[in-house]
Amino acid sequence: MSTIAITNVTLIDGLGGLPRPATTVIVEGDRFATVGPSDSTPVPEGATVVDGNRRWMVPGYVNGNVHLLDAWMFMAGPGTIEYLARWEGRYVEVIEEAAQLALRNGVTTVFDTHNAIEPVLAARDRINAGISQGARIFAAGTIVGMGGPFSADFHFAGRTAATRTFVDRIDSMFEAGVGHQLSLLPRKEVRARVRDYLSRGVDMLKIAVSDHIVFTLVDRSVGFDRSYQTFSRPVLEVMVEEARAAGVPVLTHSVSVEALDTSVELGADVLIHANYTLGQEIPNYLIDKIVASDSWAGLQTVHDQHRQGLEDVGSWAAALAGEPYATNERNLISANAKILLNTDAGCPSKDHLADLSPVEREDRPWTIGNDHFHWTQSMVEKGMSPLEAISAATINVARAYGKADQIGSVETGKLADFVLLDQDPVDDIRNLRSITEVFQAGAAVDRAALPTTPLVTAHPA
Amino acid sequence: MSTIAITNVTLIDGLGGLPRPATTVIVEGDRFATVGPSDSTPVPEGATVVDGNRRWMVPGYVNGNVHLLDAWMFMAGPGTIEYLARWEGRYVEVIEEAAQLALRNGVTTVFDTHNAIEPVLAARDRINAGISQGARIFAAGTIVGMGGPFSADFHFAGRTAATRTFVDRIDSMFEAGVGHQLSLLPRKEVRARVRDYLSRGVDMLKIAVSDHIVFTLVDRSVGFDRSYQTFSRPVLEVMVEEARAAGVPVLTHSVSVEALDTSVELGADVLIHANYTLGQEIPNYLIDKIVASDSWAGLQTVHDQHRQGLEDVGSWAAALAGEPYATNERNLISANAKILLNTDAGCPSKDHLADLSPVEREDRPWTIGNDHFHWTQSMVEKGMSPLEAISAATINVARAYGKADQIGSVETGKLADFVLLDQDPVDDIRNLRSITEVFQAGAAVDRAALPTTPLVTAHPA
Amino acid sequence: MSTIAITNVTLIDGLGGLPRPATTVIVEGDRFATVGPSDSTPVPEGATVVDGNRRWMVPGYVNGNVHLLDAWMFMAGPGTIEYLARWEGRYVEVIEEAAQLALRNGVTTVFDTHNAIEPVLAARDRINAGISQGARIFAAGTIVGMGGPFSADFHFAGRTAATRTFVDRIDSMFEAGVGHQLSLLPRKEVRARVRDYLSRGVDMLKIAVSDHIVFTLVDRSVGFDRSYQTFSRPVLEVMVEEARAAGVPVLTHSVSVEALDTSVELGADVLIHANYTLGQEIPNYLIDKIVASDSWAGLQTVHDQHRQGLEDVGSWAAALAGEPYATNERNLISANAKILLNTDAGCPSKDHLADLSPVEREDRPWTIGNDHFHWTQSMVEKGMSPLEAISAATINVARAYGKADQIGSVETGKLADFVLLDQDPVDDIRNLRSITEVFQAGAAVDRAALPTTPLVTAHPA
Amino acid sequence: MSTIAITNVTLIDGLGGLPRPATTVIVEGDRFATVGPSDSTPVPEGATVVDGNRRWMVPGYVNGNVHLLDAWMFMAGPGTIEYLARWEGRYVEVIEEAAQLALRNGVTTVFDTHNAIEPVLAARDRINAGISQGARIFAAGTIVGMGGPFSADFHFAGRTAATRTFVDRIDSMFEAGVGHQLSLLPRKEVRARVRDYLSRGVDMLKIAVSDHIVFTLVDRSVGFDRSYQTFSRPVLEVMVEEARAAGVPVLTHSVSVEALDTSVELGADVLIHANYTLGQEIPNYLIDKIVASDSWAGLQTVHDQHRQGLEDVGSWAAALAGEPYATNERNLISANAKILLNTDAGCPSKDHLADLSPVEREDRPWTIGNDHFHWTQSMVEKGMSPLEAISAATINVARAYGKADQIGSVETGKLADFVLLDQDPVDDIRNLRSITEVFQAGAAVDRAALPTTPLVTAHPA
Repeated sequence: MSTIAITNVTLIDGLGGLPRPATTVIVEGDRFATVGPSDSTPVPEGATVVDGNRRWMVPGYVNGNVHLLDAWMFMAGPGTIEYLARWEGRYVEVIEEAAQLALRNGVTTVFDTHNAIEPVLAARDRINAGISQGARIFAAGTIVGMGGPFSADFHFAGRTAATRTFVDRIDSMFEAGVGHQLSLLPRKEVRARVRDYLSRGVDMLKIAVSDHIVFTLVDRSVGFDRSYQTFSRPVLEVMVEEARAAGVPVLTHSVSVEALDTSVELGADVLIHANYTLGQEIPNYLIDKIVASDSWAGLQTVHDQHRQGLEDVGSWAAALAGEPYATNERNLISANAKILLNTDAGCPSKDHLADLSPVEREDRPWTIGNDHFHWTQSMVEKGMSPLEAISAATINVARAYGKADQIGSVETGKLADFVLLDQDPVDDIRNLRSITEVFQAGAAVDRAALPTTPLVTAHPA
Repeated sequence: MSTIAITNVTLIDGLGGLPRPATTVIVEGDRFATVGPSDSTPVPEGATVVDGNRRWMVPGYVNGNVHLLDAWMFMAGPGTIEYLARWEGRYVEVIEEAAQLALRNGVTTVFDTHNAIEPVLAARDRINAGISQGARIFAAGTIVGMGGPFSADFHFAGRTAATRTFVDRIDSMFEAGVGHQLSLLPRKEVRARVRDYLSRGVDMLKIAVSDHIVFTLVDRSVGFDRSYQTFSRPVLEVMVEEARAAGVPVLTHSVSVEALDTSVELGADVLIHANYTLGQEIPNYLIDKIVASDSWAGLQTVHDQHRQGLEDVGSWAAALAGEPYATNERNLISANAKILLNTDAGCPSKDHLADLSPVEREDRPWTIGNDHFHWTQSMVEKGMSPLEAISAATINVARAYGKADQIGSVETGKLADFVLLDQDPVDDIRNLRSITEVFQAGAAVDRAALPTTPLVTAHPA
Repeated sequence: MSTIAITNVTLIDGLGGLPRPATTVIVEGDRFATVGPSDSTPVPEGATVVDGNRRWMVPGYVNGNVHLLDAWMFMAGPGTIEYLARWEGRYVEVIEEAAQLALRNGVTTVFDTHNAIEPVLAARDRINAGISQGARIFAAGTIVGMGGPFSADFHFAGRTAATRTFVDRIDSMFEAGVGHQLSLLPRKEVRARVRDYLSRGVDMLKIAVSDHIVFTLVDRSVGFDRSYQTFSRPVLEVMVEEARAAGVPVLTHSVSVEALDTSVELGADVLIHANYTLGQEIPNYLIDKIVASDSWAGLQTVHDQHRQGLEDVGSWAAALAGEPYATNERNLISANAKILLNTDAGCPSKDHLADLSPVEREDRPWTIGNDHFHWTQSMVEKGMSPLEAISAATINVARAYGKADQIGSVETGKLADFVLLDQDPVDDIRNLRSITEVFQAGAAVDRAALPTTPLVTAHPA
Repeated sequence: MSTIAITNVTLIDGLGGLPRPATTVIVEGDRFATVGPSDSTPVPEGATVVDGNRRWMVPGYVNGNVHLLDAWMFMAGPGTIEYLARWEGRYVEVIEEAAQLALRNGVTTVFDTHNAIEPVLAARDRINAGISQGARIFAAGTIVGMGGPFSADFHFAGRTAATRTFVDRIDSMFEAGVGHQLSLLPRKEVRARVRDYLSRGVDMLKIAVSDHIVFTLVDRSVGFDRSYQTFSRPVLEVMVEEARAAGVPVLTHSVSVEALDTSVELGADVLIHANYTLGQEIPNYLIDKIVASDSWAGLQTVHDQHRQGLEDVGSWAAALAGEPYATNERNLISANAKILLNTDAGCPSKDHLADLSPVEREDRPWTIGNDHFHWTQSMVEKGMSPLEAISAATINVARAYGKADQIGSVETGKLADFVLLDQDPVDDIRNLRSITEVFQAGAAVDRAALPTTPLVTAHPA
């Protein structure tokens, strides 16, 4: 068992306390063994020593909401056919590529909350088994109640340009028996379907409390002017019961005030993009209800400069980047809601990025590997302190998902996931980018070697 | 006050009992004064005598669900712009024309459950005041939670071919402040909006428990493969409370098993097209729940021959005419659910009809004036006796809407709405078409003079 | 026979010479009788005297290319269904309304080069017979080879939102047997069809040398990146032969360099919107060829300020307003090509205008009544002198169409069509708007009374 | 140099004469050395002997019009993005796979008349150099005047579902500087562009005399109701001049009577799908003109049973399979026009085929490898004798393209391309399928090994 000592480092342990200068952290095997002042913490004999002088140590970043296959693009539409056709049969590799791009940028764990179940579980298992590299993955598979990439929930228009055989094959792979047709079923049948789905080994259950189709079907020129509930209240309660019985966390997808309120009433563990309440600010009574609850609020944020850029070029995404969402973020932050990193990021194709204007590509919040930097910057902009932002991107995610005994902070006994920086993130949150080394479970990551076999990021040559 | 005596008629009073041959019915003013055996019921002096020999008397038909402006076409799409542009400024006349086509065919009262609120209330008031003729109208205005004709709930595609100024003007007229944007509001704001809406004088409140957009936005080639709930459960409860406070009946629009179940749980008075549970048969437990409740089930039905025709020509409407809806109808009938006439019929344009194949035009279930004949025939096909079908098209509707003290049967004290036939409808339900005279509130209707000033049915000349 | 004397006026006779101050013009009946210096031209006894002091007299404007039913909108698309449905059966009135809006603004004659043949000929005949008022109309009916408003040449997308019965009825009315299907026929059959068409009494034959569908079918985002020839060269020659045999002028619709070249080679009398050569400047050799030919060049122009406005708001029409068209205009003007007023203007619906941004509505070049003011201003901007612009808007049009013996200038023996201004148009061409009186065929026009029965311009109220 | 002797075979030499039983054919190296009666033609010493007893020998089939990348699908639309994205970077391999499927079925030479220029020339050169296998390819590259797969000429709608970066990249690859934008250019610039294009080494020049966009842009429900000329007559003449100067054959794409007439007047060598004259029979005068000319007529045919199947299932392709095209074929055959095999076939994706109904897939005329069997069967159905059909599929193609000195018949000195059958094709033309051996340039083809590395035909596994 190897031993590593990081000496004289300024430690930001993720738990929110002040940075501790001159700290020594001893890693034994894959775990943190000792954390203490350098002057009272001896370096074990035989340890590999990493000089932490003029360095800052933060826990490995943990992202509470990614879609490693680029589901954001499925929602945008154009490019989805190309992406899914070009890489068909190689989705496991694409997911791993995305996980490697995350890891290269210090994200040691991700929670993938929407993906094709088989490849994402396969990639998870391959990374866990050390067969492949990448951020550690926990996966929900699909969002229960949502259709595949070519359903009305995403790129329905793609059906006019694709073979039905192909789109049906892909959609089935994503829907996994709990797609949008579930909305038609009686509560008893839903229970059976969800129970069966949970038995496939997913790490959490994500429920579509809101519908999704207004994002994609309605001409965005009329605005997001409606939002529905995918399921009746009794059906939602059935799903939560099944998740509880299976011992996995419950996540909710909501985009309206009432769907958010319903999610809180259901006792969801994580309210994914809780700030998305189309067109309406979250009322004060609901802010209070969230704070008083046990639910964690994922926020999906765009910083001001990028939002302005999206508006300037008339990007449809601007509609998801402005008010009332920023106000919701500010209000949740100032009310001390329990907040976590949540980005929807995935591995975008180069052609998709090339279609965008420079201002849309630059520091893009939905590109894996950049997303958490964008997010933490935006959170500080919206009212968090840098230390709060770091906690929101580390320990909070672990707590929300019930993994705080293993990850999310630099504490004795936890997995030794950490990042070393050479500029002070408390001084400027953007310094989270100043990574010099990434360690995952006690092992130094060869960042330059990631991604190991670029596919998506290497096409076209 | 005039007196009329219909003598020696075979009376089917609408209440379900056996026909009473040799009956005399005395009408004084606008009411039934006496109903009795002809041999013991003297004709008052000075009465106008109508010889009922070889005639059958049934109550004036009462339709529990029409849209006098042709909302069915709004759902179908093409033609909507023409219709609403050509008659803009004259909707009151179009509504009256539809009410006159109904009246000409024996329908003395209609419940319009979706329409532009101002013109439908104006037409209602004009007919009530005797300024205009037509079936007596009770009106819900819009369906709360549903958008106008050019919203995603109906002919959204029409927006690509119309001026925005026009479609927004028309949509606003229909939405009346309680359109689809309501789905975005918190429960407290919904209450205020609904309360305000009720204050405008509608006769009932119709709630969109189901969403509507899958009917119209999604390519029908993929089938009706999803259905949402427009509102959260707390919002629905708020709406029902407001309707109760205003003293008007509650109607629900539902198209899925769960939305139907929710509607019953809400205590809706009328479950509009209760048989529409897309793709899924109503489970037995829910049939039982409906029967045990106080809710009345509107059924929207297509008889077998017409359904076959729709399928033969590939009409999109075939998807609303086959299974599982017919099975639902049979099951509700055999379980003795409380059922009422419900057709969605309106006044279709001649161009719209000309677009249809002959088999679609023939005995069309959504054409006002023909709809109730189609419906009663289909109900007998699905298991009702002719007398039950007649009750479903008369007294049941009155009871469902709380109007049974005034209309729906031939009983002393009620409004003298009735129809004389010269063929026996018990022998063959299609004989409801064999109308010789229609009386509304004691007055003989000049059927040949209806519609009085044809607009829609006279274009193009 | 009435006699009118306009005394002491500054006369701009349309023929291009310098303004003649202190001129007296005597009108007898519908003709100019005498034109001479006021000091040597006595006012006949009994004449009505109009004091022309501080007034400028110009010939009645003559527009060489209008579409009184608003065909520009048919090309734009949205609104076409509404317009044609709302006024169906009343197109003659709409055409007259447009002709009245023209007349009110000093346009005493228009050449309608695309319209539904029956109503436009009916309106022409009614105005000629004095049954109705308006600018004198000469009409081509349709453009031979072009489909109706709902064909691929115009608002094909409207077919998805309209009844087929309606759009086919309207299209047939426009196509009149010489629509786009003509492009499929052998030359011999084309001859027969065109001969038959000419026998219906049109005043000129307009041939679609260019196709039209790229304007309307292809997503404008890819630009106008192609243009075809509607007919083979032998077919074009057949058409010209038939027009010559019938004694009517030949007009060509062209939008590419090669179609323009072909039009000149065919010996067309009028090259409608000769400056439209999509994406390509007219080469010098072709400019020279036009100048050397007998063809008159209609120019369709947008002045700089309006063009800038269209670009600023992203109007699709900007693509027809910028380069290379303005360069073509300048080059044709400087090469002394024979140029005439040509605007495509028609009577737009208020809803269509309301959809536009203020900058698009303001001084709109395609709105009848304003179009010629916009055009003359733009022509001066592109290099014409004010006097040349006035000639282009009067005598040139008359000459191009072979009507110069009757109209187009203030000369003895011609129809007394003229306009009085109170500001000097040579000083500023925009002063053509400063109209105080309009006379048509010797009669003062009651401008305030026009349009006599507003339909289009009065909806919605 | 190897020698092969096929003895005692019944020879159908492709030149139209009666089959010669008991013939011996000697092949030396890649050429036919001797052809004579077996009893007077000795087998050279050392020759490999192939016993031709009960065998029929026909020349290797030569297809005058294929698109090895499946351009037919580009026209159909759906599937195009998948196909071009999945195989991007590997088009050379796909083209070779198609050429191998042809060769496996006896087609030893193909003329690819529309394809991406670089990959098709690369595949041509690789096969010629013996680096790869497959039918010998002669290639036109693109059709001059036609846009790429995502232009309005093909799957324009695909642009709504693809990244612009991708579709522009692919379109450019196909258009090669002579795409649809050429229609906007003056004749002088067209000459320069075409000259440059010819310098890239294409084997023939194919000109879009007809436009193509009505096939793809206009809703097929209105029918193919128009057709344009891509270029003016002077531009067409310029192109022909350039092709003549470069010494390559001229092919024309035409789909209307007038475009066909124009093509004949231009002196085209091959009139591709000469029978396609949308909606109109070719008039007798034009049939006569074709027969009197030097032009060869490619016919694109569908046999009756398949046409019926297409109609039964409502395939859009039915519109290209019925009248008047079959009548045109019969008339051209009975008038003794010079006819050649022409199929538009390419290598279809399995997903595309899976989308089709069984009746569309069965004996599909646009699937490479099956197409020529379908075609010859249909030609016999339309009036050819089996021997004429064989000549049309062999020597005629060679003659039309100026290659009859090398290929197209079994004659001394020509390349030894031939096929052995074990059933008599004169007895039943369908026996052309009864292939036992294929020889190309004197070498036996290992049919079982083709395609050598299946891509398109192996996906999905």
